[in-house]
Amino acid sequence: MMIPNWLMKRADLTPDRMALSFEGEQWTFRQLKEEAVEIARKLRKNGLMEGERISLLGPSTPDMVFIIHGCLLAGLEIVMLNSKLSTREIAWQLDDCKASTVIVADEFLSRVENLKTNVLTFSTLKSSGQQDLSITAMWDPSRTMTIMYTSGTTGHPKGVRQTVGNHTSSALSSVLNLGLNEADIWLCTMPLFHISGFSILARSVIYGMGVRLYEKFDTLAVTDEVRNGTVTRISVVATGLQRLLDELEKSDTIAHASLRTVLAGGGPVPDEYLRRAEKYNLPVLQTYGMTETSSQTATLSSEDALRKSGSTGKPLFFNQIKIREEEKPGDLGEVLIAGPHVTPGYIGYAADKNPLENGWLPTGDIGYIDEDGYLFIVDRRSDLIISGGENIYPAEIENVLLSCPNVLEAGVCGQDHPEWGSVPIAFIVKDGEISESELETYCREQLAGYKVPKAFHFVEQLPRNASNKLLRRELKEWMKRK
Amino acid sequence: MMIPNWLMKRADLTPDRMALSFEGEQWTFRQLKEEAVEIARKLRKNGLMEGERISLLGPSTPDMVFIIHGCLLAGLEIVMLNSKLSTREIAWQLDDCKASTVIVADEFLSRVENLKTNVLTFSTLKSSGQQDLSITAMWDPSRTMTIMYTSGTTGHPKGVRQTVGNHTSSALSSVLNLGLNEADIWLCTMPLFHISGFSILARSVIYGMGVRLYEKFDTLAVTDEVRNGTVTRISVVATGLQRLLDELEKSDTIAHASLRTVLAGGGPVPDEYLRRAEKYNLPVLQTYGMTETSSQTATLSSEDALRKSGSTGKPLFFNQIKIREEEKPGDLGEVLIAGPHVTPGYIGYAADKNPLENGWLPTGDIGYIDEDGYLFIVDRRSDLIISGGENIYPAEIENVLLSCPNVLEAGVCGQDHPEWGSVPIAFIVKDGEISESELETYCREQLAGYKVPKAFHFVEQLPRNASNKLLRRELKEWMKRK
Repeated sequence: MMIPNWLMKRADLTPDRMALSFEGEQWTFRQLKEEAVEIARKLRKNGLMEGERISLLGPSTPDMVFIIHGCLLAGLEIVMLNSKLSTREIAWQLDDCKASTVIVADEFLSRVENLKTNVLTFSTLKSSGQQDLSITAMWDPSRTMTIMYTSGTTGHPKGVRQTVGNHTSSALSSVLNLGLNEADIWLCTMPLFHISGFSILARSVIYGMGVRLYEKFDTLAVTDEVRNGTVTRISVVATGLQRLLDELEKSDTIAHASLRTVLAGGGPVPDEYLRRAEKYNLPVLQTYGMTETSSQTATLSSEDALRKSGSTGKPLFFNQIKIREEEKPGDLGEVLIAGPHVTPGYIGYAADKNPLENGWLPTGDIGYIDEDGYLFIVDRRSDLIISGGENIYPAEIENVLLSCPNVLEAGVCGQDHPEWGSVPIAFIVKDGEISESELETYCREQLAGYKVPKAFHFVEQLPRNASNKLLRRELKEWMKRK
Repeated sequence: MMIPNWLMKRADLTPDRMALSFEGEQWTFRQLKEEAVEIARKLRKNGLMEGERISLLGPSTPDMVFIIHGCLLAGLEIVMLNSKLSTREIAWQLDDCKASTVIVADEFLSRVENLKTNVLTFSTLKSSGQQDLSITAMWDPSRTMTIMYTSGTTGHPKGVRQTVGNHTSSALSSVLNLGLNEADIWLCTMPLFHISGFSILARSVIYGMGVRLYEKFDTLAVTDEVRNGTVTRISVVATGLQRLLDELEKSDTIAHASLRTVLAGGGPVPDEYLRRAEKYNLPVLQTYGMTETSSQTATLSSEDALRKSGSTGKPLFFNQIKIREEEKPGDLGEVLIAGPHVTPGYIGYAADKNPLENGWLPTGDIGYIDEDGYLFIVDRRSDLIISGGENIYPAEIENVLLSCPNVLEAGVCGQDHPEWGSVPIAFIVKDGEISESELETYCREQLAGYKVPKAFHFVEQLPRNASNKLLRRELKEWMKRK
């Protein structure tokens, strides 16, 4: 079915409801539409035409939100660039995605300045003239709306297409699980270039729900919002939840009764946090989602939060989950996903890869479904390291290390970390002189900071199986013995 | 996108939530599923196969609900028969729809006994053996789920196809307008064979929302539910709203704060009712829907209920409305509708008719859209008489009158009525002897009671235009002068 242009329809339905607030300023849906239409006209004036692919690099600010919606109104495909990436990583993605232009916040300009790409800064865009454009009232559900890069087991990030239909069905599935109230306000401290943050913007315009936006997770501010009842929903990763809990415990105050959902995604939430959350009135719902599924595939419903603690719930209304080769409930296996929220595929070098096997998306994650139908994730996708909600694929770091002079072999795995959940650690076999600090400097030039290994261990050889495949699980065992 | 089998998915997601209550008995979604699966197996045992078309005639009881869901699980198309129809009218619909079997509540058996159709009573079905069947987990959105007959200007009822996609998108559009809460319970006193009642059953399983079912509008019971906060949503037609208001006024009590929506459809609601409703805390939202749109196309949002009193609101999220040949806001014209909730077409004699013109459904209703985008219906579709929420098409009654001996010409129009909103009145030109009571007896044999004219006026000639078309609006003028 055709899907209405989210923002135009929403501004028509509830123009005077609060759409966005940031540092004390507020915008209604009518105002958000006006800002976005103006940006769309300026994009046209800059020669960006319907169907064109651009990339976007900016912080979580109102300008970024206006530009995202402006791009959508102008019919552009947006490659959402992760602002934590190194210049080298950004260059790789820009080369792969073939975006005609990178639209960049002025403070991030240095990240893209020397690249062979057309650059349009936020300030240049905003001071541009305007050109009329016709804004389509209805969207084709198969239109690619956003592209987000995510690495796989090979270490090469793939640009995942997220369509109008993907995002819309994801928002609809979620509303049938979480419910909806006119007074709902979602606190967004998640990066907008991640599906966790972008999906909040999508829900906002589809539901007519306000967003309180923060540039980053500000523990004191978030705690105040939660305590004062100024937000009804909030998305967190385990690290943020822990900081929020610490703060509530310090002041011994509980969350306000109007807080209805603490959606906890981006990796496992330790059971201990859940117990503490209960005490402080935080209705934590664990969720299971990924870039390829435009946010949540399964989420625990509030009535099951305590009874099924540790589970990520059941597949939401339009979604399906099964375990590969499951014979009976409880069997462990790879988690497979189907539904209208699953990406139709990739762009760039991976454009020809079909993400599905027989209609199902293999996730690489290992889990089981219990007798009542609840999904439990036991092991994240092959060696994935989740650090503060960011996914880190060991192979990507190993590729960088292997390109370093005097490194013969490299193996990376995650080490438990009290604040970030996990951090990457490297094991190196050298064939010349190189020091730990030289390796770190090398990595820092080429990788986002959160991907730089926190330690480099020099070893004689790496654990490999008969077919010479690196056994990263063995590395983990080695670390425990250290 | 494929749509999950509503009840199977719902019973999987929230098995222990209340799904249905009736006269003190309750069923959870798990129990509802068990009842429906059993019915589906019994339907198979009776030889009813996937894709087959049956017709269903029954009251608003739990058995009826189980059978509706059982039919859906068994993959049957259901022709929903209006139990107020005369035997002759039912015979006509059965002949037109070519249903293989009519499934009938025992108390209605006499209505179909002498017809040439295969009959399966509720009691026979329930005492049948069972046969295994495979229940599909996913539904094709284009599958015809229900068929409801509605008359047009020609006087011949047409069987309107309502698909899985029609009903589902209708429920989704509505939830984005009304919101959703786990504790939501919808009071259903509307006939299940009408889209107003059936759509409550659909929302129930799509949302995971309980339904408190009544066989008919019981003013005292409904007032109690509303006063005690045992329901959060209720659908009414103007007649029901008036009775509810009378009762609240009599006892001078107001509706409970947990009542969030009084959805008022099936025709205009007098402004006076809206003012009284405000006083008694009834959050009345006027809605505009029809059989061809599987329930609501537009509904006033709660924040606009008072500010835009008299309007039926804006087209819901997935829907579109425009006024034929509108040049500026406020222009009067025929209301045209588009969206995923609009029927793909008819069955039977009208199967070849395309309900759409250039992708839009012409409604025959006259209205305008104001400067803020709110729809106001000024005149219901060509001469339509709405009596207690039931649609009456004058041409259908005229056809019956013309078949009566000694009637030369007949014209029917609506007369305002304090309780029913409007009732049909007939004007007759005779060419032989016939009395008012003979005409009434003749009509009563062939028409549902609510369609039988409340008065028969004998005249010399009927008002016609140059091309001899009956001018029903003139009849209305005649009546005022009487």
